[in-house]
Amino acid sequence: MQFHKLTADRFEFECGKAIENFEIAYHTSPRDYRKGEKVIWICHALTANSDPEDWWESLVGPGKLIDTEKYFVVCSNMPGSPYGTTSPVSVNPATGKPYYFDYPDVTTRDIVSSIILVRKALGIEKVDLLLGSSIGGFYAIEWSIIEPEVIKKAAFIATTSRVSPYLTAFMETQRMAIEADPTFREAKSPQGGLEGMKCARAIALISYRCYEGYDITQKEMDDDAVFAQRAASYERYQGEKLGRRFNAYSYWYLANCVDSNNAGRGRGGEAAALGSIKADVTLVAIDTDCIFRPKEIEKMSEFIPGCKYHVINSLFGHDGFLLEYEQLTKILKPLIED
Amino acid sequence: MQFHKLTADRFEFECGKAIENFEIAYHTSPRDYRKGEKVIWICHALTANSDPEDWWESLVGPGKLIDTEKYFVVCSNMPGSPYGTTSPVSVNPATGKPYYFDYPDVTTRDIVSSIILVRKALGIEKVDLLLGSSIGGFYAIEWSIIEPEVIKKAAFIATTSRVSPYLTAFMETQRMAIEADPTFREAKSPQGGLEGMKCARAIALISYRCYEGYDITQKEMDDDAVFAQRAASYERYQGEKLGRRFNAYSYWYLANCVDSNNAGRGRGGEAAALGSIKADVTLVAIDTDCIFRPKEIEKMSEFIPGCKYHVINSLFGHDGFLLEYEQLTKILKPLIED
Repeated sequence: MQFHKLTADRFEFECGKAIENFEIAYHTSPRDYRKGEKVIWICHALTANSDPEDWWESLVGPGKLIDTEKYFVVCSNMPGSPYGTTSPVSVNPATGKPYYFDYPDVTTRDIVSSIILVRKALGIEKVDLLLGSSIGGFYAIEWSIIEPEVIKKAAFIATTSRVSPYLTAFMETQRMAIEADPTFREAKSPQGGLEGMKCARAIALISYRCYEGYDITQKEMDDDAVFAQRAASYERYQGEKLGRRFNAYSYWYLANCVDSNNAGRGRGGEAAALGSIKADVTLVAIDTDCIFRPKEIEKMSEFIPGCKYHVINSLFGHDGFLLEYEQLTKILKPLIED
Repeated sequence: MQFHKLTADRFEFECGKAIENFEIAYHTSPRDYRKGEKVIWICHALTANSDPEDWWESLVGPGKLIDTEKYFVVCSNMPGSPYGTTSPVSVNPATGKPYYFDYPDVTTRDIVSSIILVRKALGIEKVDLLLGSSIGGFYAIEWSIIEPEVIKKAAFIATTSRVSPYLTAFMETQRMAIEADPTFREAKSPQGGLEGMKCARAIALISYRCYEGYDITQKEMDDDAVFAQRAASYERYQGEKLGRRFNAYSYWYLANCVDSNNAGRGRGGEAAALGSIKADVTLVAIDTDCIFRPKEIEKMSEFIPGCKYHVINSLFGHDGFLLEYEQLTKILKPLIED
């Protein structure tokens, strides 16, 4: 896919703060949009970027299910994220230093505002299929509510219209880990809080996988070792890996953004908000997902008019949305080809 | 219960290191042990102390199920813990400073060694009922294997004979949180690493509870708040609370000790080790316990000769062992009164 940038003269956040010359990064199929052609819009998750060929490679690319040659595929990088969109580690022209804590609070609705700017800039008036998994589902749901006439079909995968207390607890421990690293508050470099963020990632990993998944991939090899260490080194490894491609400020802002997810806010509650969606919606839950429980997603299905609900099986918990592409293909194929 | 201290001239740990004049704190029924009377020995969990009247108050005390007047009740504080036993924050006479990282690695088997010293000092030759929940169950199981002739009856509650990869992952994130706080490695005061430990406690809390429990007690009250915060403040509150009564060094050593739990080590595996237990064993699982799964405990029941297996219901996950005392009473009463 092709990388683009859009600059908004002024981007106002829900909290009232604004950033001038706000850049929004996005990827599209590598050509111009042809009016009327089929548009598939993908919403990325917490630490991903706007290139789904990178993180959803089994499903997105030339000749793949989400065929970037056949369809006009778009993905936009959310405010707060460091993948091209102006983020907390971008330089604030007013100070010549990164924004850090001068960056505004980000909500799922702010993400939708940024997406609508991209949509309009591209001249897209209808989105044939909107796909949102995990945190990507949060703002995909919001977008379906905010522009019901634009979104024709949507699949919300392993996600929810309102953050659960359990997920908030997970997010808070991640913020606490970042804040336990004093270099975060010192904000002397974009590397601030990095040790804390590595731990945050390791915590997140537990929520992304499940007991069964750890049992399959991280079982101790040596039955006579004094201390178990395999799952421990896996946790550290994943923390280190994110440390090489992300920063604690973006992570912290986006962790807060997760807690803003509440489609019913100011709309008379979840039922009313979800009831206003006009898209043809498919909901997908993963049986072992411990942060977005099937029963939570099934409950949403009661509120979205005419929606379909599927459960896929995985031994890898929430991460099933990145791994169970055969089952996802079965569900998504008819939505794409229809 | 009554507080006591025993001083071992020299306590040798499994790792080969030893501490001279090693103190072991323990509680007993407030009187002398009368040879032959019924002994109930309670093994405490990670951050608890040796006074079960404090943390298992519904079950232990005069006139309660575990009647400290009727029976001789004992609980011993494990090495590493700061509740009276020589710990990483105790002063090392050789340096005049706390041991910190000079404290030896602690294993579940070291805990059993310390318990046997207490048992012998008290003149106890048989334990009529051994009770171990959570981490307390780790060393209760070990003890049943190490002294099969001493332990007559035992109940292992919400525990396992080998740490699972999932639990190790949880423990590692807790160590990472402590280490993200640089004051931990600096080791300038027993307060070192405290911010990290608060986060570790918040992480642990997620593993002690479950999705359902957070939904019941931490549901957001304000449907129109921009950011969810109730579960978040609960996490912080629990972190702060532990911060007032524990230290990061003890926590870190005991987190490592969790990863030493493997009854089969050096004994030809779990089946052989558990098969050598002579006590009449009752296993108790909690249906929503996410760190000690019923299926894990049920598997143990296949290896322990003649053992009984119960599942209790709780909406509070692993913490059910502290909360579901009515169901526990039903299971434990016949073991105590028999």
